[in-house]
Amino acid sequence: MPRLYLEDPEVGQTFGSGRIAIAADRIKSFAAEFDPQPSHLDETAASDSIFRRLAASGWHTAAITMRSLVEGEFKPADGIVGAGFDELRWPRLVRPGDVLRVETEVLEVRDSTSRPGYGVVKVRTTTLNQHNQPVQVFVANLIVTRRRGS
Amino acid sequence: MPRLYLEDPEVGQTFGSGRIAIAADRIKSFAAEFDPQPSHLDETAASDSIFRRLAASGWHTAAITMRSLVEGEFKPADGIVGAGFDELRWPRLVRPGDVLRVETEVLEVRDSTSRPGYGVVKVRTTTLNQHNQPVQVFVANLIVTRRRGS
Repeated sequence: MPRLYLEDPEVGQTFGSGRIAIAADRIKSFAAEFDPQPSHLDETAASDSIFRRLAASGWHTAAITMRSLVEGEFKPADGIVGAGFDELRWPRLVRPGDVLRVETEVLEVRDSTSRPGYGVVKVRTTTLNQHNQPVQVFVANLIVTRRRGS
Repeated sequence: MPRLYLEDPEVGQTFGSGRIAIAADRIKSFAAEFDPQPSHLDETAASDSIFRRLAASGWHTAAITMRSLVEGEFKPADGIVGAGFDELRWPRLVRPGDVLRVETEVLEVRDSTSRPGYGVVKVRTTTLNQHNQPVQVFVANLIVTRRRGS
């Protein structure tokens, strides 16, 4: 895929990604550093938790989503730069062994009022598991540069 | 701080946290795994990027925020369980050596329509650097259990 400038994306256009598997060990080590709660740290403790079995931290899912985005088909010329999110939710738990990919849909393209030479591309990025079930959805405002001289 | 049930938090109440420093090496290794873009990976590459100097991935800031929340003063009885976010933004970059803490303000407390025995506490969590400047703000809907039998 060529690098993308503000002039390129069209509303409704979609972009995919490769797949990343999430292992039980990394769920636990991510949680030990960033989200040390029973449901993410340990199978036994998780069985007593609101999630009933070991589940990934939502922030781990978000981080894997970012990796998938950066390496996926949607490639703004200056990279993936998020100005802010209108929504972020985790409709389904991510379990050990799940394999995740992302689909990004362009919702809106507009000029930036504060940054000359840049614009904002609003996208909905859905993270799907191997059963094509959404495990995370966010709506992001990405800062994308115009073609130089345009 | 005692464990908190749905009956406890009051709108306007605020909760703090300890402080976590963010080191250049961890900024780079987090980025290598989850956000492999020049502005987060390497000082030299970052100098040509939109951020001009090495900056933490926003998802790294989000993950550190979660750690601060879990270990902070706001302690729901079943842990910090996010049902979804109405907003997430990064108003200022996080640089190597920054020291972060969070402040959480209760915005709303309501019953859950879908989960008997639980409710939703809407909070605004602001992550601040050592200069008391906000580097991340989110508005989250947290699932919080009622006292058993109430």
